[in-house]
Amino acid sequence: MNKREQTHLMIGAGAMKELLQFISAHNNYSDVFVLSDIRTAHYWMKPVTEIFASLRPKEIIIENGESLKTIDTCNIIWSKLMENNATRNSLLINLGGGVVTDLGGFVAAAYKRGIDFVNIPTTLLGMVDAAWGGKTGINFDGVKNQIGTFADPVATVVDVNFLTTISDKEKLSGYAEMIKHALIDSDEHWQMICTADPLQLTIEQVLASLHVKQRIVAADPRETGVRMALNFGHTFGHAIEGYMAAHTSGNILHGEAIAWGMVAEAYLSVQCEGLPQRVANDLTELVLMHYDQSVLSNIDGKALIEFMQHDKKNHDSSIRFSLLQKVGKPVTGATCAPELIHETVDMLLDLAANKQTI
Amino acid sequence: MNKREQTHLMIGAGAMKELLQFISAHNNYSDVFVLSDIRTAHYWMKPVTEIFASLRPKEIIIENGESLKTIDTCNIIWSKLMENNATRNSLLINLGGGVVTDLGGFVAAAYKRGIDFVNIPTTLLGMVDAAWGGKTGINFDGVKNQIGTFADPVATVVDVNFLTTISDKEKLSGYAEMIKHALIDSDEHWQMICTADPLQLTIEQVLASLHVKQRIVAADPRETGVRMALNFGHTFGHAIEGYMAAHTSGNILHGEAIAWGMVAEAYLSVQCEGLPQRVANDLTELVLMHYDQSVLSNIDGKALIEFMQHDKKNHDSSIRFSLLQKVGKPVTGATCAPELIHETVDMLLDLAANKQTI
Repeated sequence: MNKREQTHLMIGAGAMKELLQFISAHNNYSDVFVLSDIRTAHYWMKPVTEIFASLRPKEIIIENGESLKTIDTCNIIWSKLMENNATRNSLLINLGGGVVTDLGGFVAAAYKRGIDFVNIPTTLLGMVDAAWGGKTGINFDGVKNQIGTFADPVATVVDVNFLTTISDKEKLSGYAEMIKHALIDSDEHWQMICTADPLQLTIEQVLASLHVKQRIVAADPRETGVRMALNFGHTFGHAIEGYMAAHTSGNILHGEAIAWGMVAEAYLSVQCEGLPQRVANDLTELVLMHYDQSVLSNIDGKALIEFMQHDKKNHDSSIRFSLLQKVGKPVTGATCAPELIHETVDMLLDLAANKQTI
Repeated sequence: MNKREQTHLMIGAGAMKELLQFISAHNNYSDVFVLSDIRTAHYWMKPVTEIFASLRPKEIIIENGESLKTIDTCNIIWSKLMENNATRNSLLINLGGGVVTDLGGFVAAAYKRGIDFVNIPTTLLGMVDAAWGGKTGINFDGVKNQIGTFADPVATVVDVNFLTTISDKEKLSGYAEMIKHALIDSDEHWQMICTADPLQLTIEQVLASLHVKQRIVAADPRETGVRMALNFGHTFGHAIEGYMAAHTSGNILHGEAIAWGMVAEAYLSVQCEGLPQRVANDLTELVLMHYDQSVLSNIDGKALIEFMQHDKKNHDSSIRFSLLQKVGKPVTGATCAPELIHETVDMLLDLAANKQTI
């Protein structure tokens, strides 16, 4: 294992070659493994391994999807690393979306007490959020990211060229985190994101969003304070995501759940923190414009609240939220009256049934 | 999760009350869990939980033995923590030998990306070695400590009173690591340990040994350099331990395997590093006096070497050793000719068959 330093960020079309130079120059890796999921690998494994051909990378390909983000998948990868005699000085390159970078990061962090890893996010969500910030993890007993560690990649590559092979649904999933970053950043950023086209984002918009994440994570790497601002929308969002995974066959992407989570938590922010009603209305309108509220149909409100009670953000029995006092002014560790949480669930379910107007 | 600082060491009869004060004063823990194995719990769970009664600790008891140090056991404990709504601010107290502190440390380090934990070693091996130094881990696919992290307990309690309930075999297991610490420390320490009674050790002898571990770990917490000196005897020792677990029904304790590993690696040290033959002879005599060489009978030398090839210390295809140039002067990252490794295996197997004299 090499000493961890700051993650190197490599941007744009030349980023992959820059990474190759970085790996060759900075470390004495015994071998290189590329982890990807089957869908991403279909498009990108060959082009990527060709760039790294001089390192003779070995491929590890896992199945697709959030349901694979489990300890069983870690076990499979750890066994493959062992079969291939991976050492403490092996390097793992995670090529894929948030599932691959979260899970691959944990696999690397726990293999022989930690080997170096690199993240190459191939989804928008990965680029602006998941692949940056040191959080690794897997789901456990139906609860998101319950098991994991803080571990930083030695390098992260951001190349929007990868977005040419993801679906509109996946772009919208990433766009939700960009909305969140804008809301906790500034009015200017929020205005920019409201008028952006989520299907035709520019590299400037992607980098503006990534920089919010970078700035907040740098100030609080272990999430003991200000970093919790990044959880806006996530108490409800994680519960929606967990509920959908447990109770429906339809798949909902992380960012879609976060979009509705933000609508719920903007409502709470108005009630508890004095967020201007106008911001909550604008956000709800934006989310309704881009996201299909029918995913919320048939949610059982009581079960949703039970999911929230398992959220990592709770350090006692009460449910904690990261809310907004205004755009650019987040507040963390907030609690709300149980009745208000129930009222918010009802508001969301009414939205799903088109009963709610803004 | 609280920010990690230096591990607090609490020593002697008042250590448990000191720990209670430390927990109450220094942190705002939401709840406290005590993890132990069924054998240790039989003797110590009640006395310990009575001391911590004001914290209303919850008990988690696992089965006994090295064979339980697996990801499956972690899964069971993680599930129990979740069932009991353990939060990021929960504290896990590991009460037991090396299996409990290694596994419990990993469970804590990966639960919700890391909760605080305390080690209360109840075996000699735990006190002088396993419970100190930040290495956590489990065995995987038959290889020792293959999965794990570096994570420090917030506090470690050393109270020799716990040794009243361990067997002579377990005392000898801990004594082997004390021999190792003495050999890499100084002539004085080595003389002291040669004349010590492993079944009647004094607190001064235990602390002298622990201080060697502390000093070396502090200089190199992530084992990138001098810390590897602590691996003297461990390349062979781990292989013997892994081989015995895979191929025999008899149980061999960690330290017993390390004792024979040191005999082997002292032989290598004489050949490769110029260790005086007299030291190797004295060590072999000491090990033969206290440990039963018949455990080495029926070992297949070729399989033993294969186990060594999976050792974490190898960063390429060659087998690495931590050897001795002289007492107090370790050398790390050493390689030896394959023929010499085979010769050493033969020497060990001859010892087992009483064919070897010193």
